[in-house]
Amino acid sequence: MPTQHRLDYSLYVITDRSLAKGRSHLDVAKAAIAGGANVIQLRDKSASSLELYREGLRIRELTSRAGALFIMNDRLDLALAVNADGVHLGQDDLPLPAARKLIGAEKIIGVSVENPEQAAVAEAQGASYVAIGPIYEARESKGDAGPPVGPQAIAAIRKATRLPIVAIGGIKAHHIAEVIGAGADSIAVISAVVAAPDIKAAAAALRQRIVAARRAYA
Amino acid sequence: MPTQHRLDYSLYVITDRSLAKGRSHLDVAKAAIAGGANVIQLRDKSASSLELYREGLRIRELTSRAGALFIMNDRLDLALAVNADGVHLGQDDLPLPAARKLIGAEKIIGVSVENPEQAAVAEAQGASYVAIGPIYEARESKGDAGPPVGPQAIAAIRKATRLPIVAIGGIKAHHIAEVIGAGADSIAVISAVVAAPDIKAAAAALRQRIVAARRAYA
Repeated sequence: MPTQHRLDYSLYVITDRSLAKGRSHLDVAKAAIAGGANVIQLRDKSASSLELYREGLRIRELTSRAGALFIMNDRLDLALAVNADGVHLGQDDLPLPAARKLIGAEKIIGVSVENPEQAAVAEAQGASYVAIGPIYEARESKGDAGPPVGPQAIAAIRKATRLPIVAIGGIKAHHIAEVIGAGADSIAVISAVVAAPDIKAAAAALRQRIVAARRAYA
Repeated sequence: MPTQHRLDYSLYVITDRSLAKGRSHLDVAKAAIAGGANVIQLRDKSASSLELYREGLRIRELTSRAGALFIMNDRLDLALAVNADGVHLGQDDLPLPAARKLIGAEKIIGVSVENPEQAAVAEAQGASYVAIGPIYEARESKGDAGPPVGPQAIAAIRKATRLPIVAIGGIKAHHIAEVIGAGADSIAVISAVVAAPDIKAAAAALRQRIVAARRAYA
């Protein structure tokens, strides 16, 4: 595990088999990393534990070779079993204090938050990053997402925590300058990359915009 | 944790919210223990991690007070987070060696097996018990179960392992003498207890038959 404060979450790709047009989690991860993704999150609520474990081992090998981070969604046991870099916890997952106790101090724990108060609590309880969204309309990826919160939600959270902020939900290439400008450290995408006909090209285009936006706001 | 060789798995009740007629996992567990259940397994593939965690904490408290064992289905992380006595792994769950490494030597790991060879492997890899089934027709509880294997499958596994054998699948009170006679150490039930109008009475009737069968075969 790299030291946490030096981690680069810039382009954070969450796999989703239902959007991937027949491509496996590994296919998607491989192409996304080739296009410049820094983080791969394995997320599949319909797979068995055994399937997730096997796919997780493959993605661990891939991400280790590529120097990308590997985050397991929800399943802390599988994160440990495949030696992922960490786990992402939504609001319906294991509470952060219980998760931190089990996974130890070194691993990444990302937490979905809805407002600055939750971000401050997450930081106090040992989160490694916070994720906020949906920033824009994102009908196709997560059925349980609420209404868009807009980039101003990022700016509000920026004042509440020093943790890296991952912005998620409906983010397209043309939004990136605005999202980075509002204080996000990371752009998380599902369909913008996973559902793209050319995953590598889609990831590369996003990554390029992130780099450009960083320069503009540096 | 009690020492493993002294554990009593006699009546092993697996909770199932879809069969419980509106009663919660905790309601079911409470009544089953009052009727004499020795083991409660929390199993709910549709609940969120957070719901399972909260329900698990309640069932941990209940089973600790009652001196019953508490096993979590599949989710090793939740088993650890709520300090359950162990975890049960099906054929589509985390492989036993990976699970044993994570959960440590002291906790119970139960494994579903289909034949004597799998039982011998499970013993060699550190399983605490093996479960075999469905012994009889059990259409209502597990959609993924194969055809009934009959009590003779228990006898075959009895020759392959010294581990406790949990028999599961369609077992009713009138089967118990046959199942115990074939070498089972434990009767696992879902609907026979969980779907009963009077859970406590249903559990007590099964427990009484187990005790009587043990005497007959002692």
